[in-house]
Amino acid sequence: MMAEIDDVRSLLSGRPRPVGWTERRARIEEVAAVDPPPEGVTFTPATIAGVPAEWSVASDADPRRVLLFLHGGGYCSGSIVSHRNLASRSGQAAGMRCLALQYRLAPEHPFPAALEDARGVYEALLDQGFAPGDIVVGGDSAGGGLTLALMVALRDAGRPLPGCAWLISPWIDLAMTGATIDCKDAVDPLIHRAYLEDLSEAYRGGRPAEDPLISPLHADLVGLPPVLVQVGSAEALLDDAVRIAGRLGAADVPVRLEVWPAMIHAWMLWAARLADGRRALAAAGDFLRRRGI
Amino acid sequence: MMAEIDDVRSLLSGRPRPVGWTERRARIEEVAAVDPPPEGVTFTPATIAGVPAEWSVASDADPRRVLLFLHGGGYCSGSIVSHRNLASRSGQAAGMRCLALQYRLAPEHPFPAALEDARGVYEALLDQGFAPGDIVVGGDSAGGGLTLALMVALRDAGRPLPGCAWLISPWIDLAMTGATIDCKDAVDPLIHRAYLEDLSEAYRGGRPAEDPLISPLHADLVGLPPVLVQVGSAEALLDDAVRIAGRLGAADVPVRLEVWPAMIHAWMLWAARLADGRRALAAAGDFLRRRGI
Repeated sequence: MMAEIDDVRSLLSGRPRPVGWTERRARIEEVAAVDPPPEGVTFTPATIAGVPAEWSVASDADPRRVLLFLHGGGYCSGSIVSHRNLASRSGQAAGMRCLALQYRLAPEHPFPAALEDARGVYEALLDQGFAPGDIVVGGDSAGGGLTLALMVALRDAGRPLPGCAWLISPWIDLAMTGATIDCKDAVDPLIHRAYLEDLSEAYRGGRPAEDPLISPLHADLVGLPPVLVQVGSAEALLDDAVRIAGRLGAADVPVRLEVWPAMIHAWMLWAARLADGRRALAAAGDFLRRRGI
Repeated sequence: MMAEIDDVRSLLSGRPRPVGWTERRARIEEVAAVDPPPEGVTFTPATIAGVPAEWSVASDADPRRVLLFLHGGGYCSGSIVSHRNLASRSGQAAGMRCLALQYRLAPEHPFPAALEDARGVYEALLDQGFAPGDIVVGGDSAGGGLTLALMVALRDAGRPLPGCAWLISPWIDLAMTGATIDCKDAVDPLIHRAYLEDLSEAYRGGRPAEDPLISPLHADLVGLPPVLVQVGSAEALLDDAVRIAGRLGAADVPVRLEVWPAMIHAWMLWAARLADGRRALAAAGDFLRRRGI
């Protein structure tokens, strides 16, 4: 397993760090989409509530249930293409259809553009006849933070909530107050404070990092459905995962936190070449089917 | 489910809080042993390495595997009798034999008496031919802290480690620095700061609360086997569970934390009358069988 994660580390460190949004966006497409998507999955483009999206459906998927997938990339990069492997494997593991969104990105479209897109699509799924409990929402990194923000916004608006939520290496504190931002810096090949500061500034568009819909660490979390949080031990964002699990639990939300040794930020992106990525997806799939710890 | 936990709360609040060690010891025997143990389990007393113990074995238990169970009670109370239901149901859920220990209690026998007893029995199991990986160790409250201390002591001594560990509502910080000691005080029917201070003083016998074998929050946790932590949301010790999960994860230990809404301290003690107790034991049993997240 160490050999496998070292192979992914090599893939990530093979070239100098990208500079600027254009290079950063190109790099995530390049490194996250190295492996072909799984076999036996059908991909269909869609536009829902004006948001570009992609269905991925395995032959044995339950047609009544859907995983709404929100990709990572710091709210400024990432796409249906970069996350096609992760999204489609996730739907496959959960035994349901997966709908991956291409929400609007900062800095061109700062907060709340991404949240509006995610909410619009969720409401459209309800309009299409999906029962709220048959929708589950999940995502990695910024997509994990966006997943929580979506649930908080829906709860605040009195709307029906999804069946459960899934946060992979979530970024839930855009002020970067977690201790592991610094103490795990040397072992994290992807996430560093200066990079997060750029992303935070771009997404916030002048709003405070303590806004609960920007940093759900500060949100009232009461009433949310069950949440699974998965994180690697070699992550600057480890404390984001641990802290949000603690806050969710204290707010009486059923929560399961898994910390996977030696795994890096959003390691399931490389599940095709990482046995611990496939194992983590299998555990998540089980949680999403059961909608609970 | 709320009705069930409220029934347990009534059981606990029916009489004034006990005063002094004798009353406290009598009360835990009384409230924790209200239900008969599960059917189909055979109980056999034993003395191992000089420590009184009790085997509980269900008919389908794997004879090669054993759950070493360390009861709670703040290192000052609790026994094979008070925890017979929990220990035997745990072994049953894990599909293995359970060995519950009657380790020496403070204040008569302060630290490290309990740890010496637990370690002696573990070594005796190895001498009896159990493979270390076929032994799993678990316990509730102080028994959870003792479980971690045992693993740290074994690791420090270069001894073979058990296959995995299981901490129910663990008490791992005898200085009580967790925020939930105060902010969950009003909803916790069992654990309060003044009570913990008495227990801590009695167990420490003059040693500092920061001793890593007394408060494993301060231990080097590197190299430990996988750990499952289960805790209720209505617990003063919620932060002990969340913090130790974070520390274990940061030390590259595979860890799973589950927070169960509305559940109280060591709620599986009342699994006979609590569906969420039985569900939590089933989840733990699955973890102990697989030895990992």
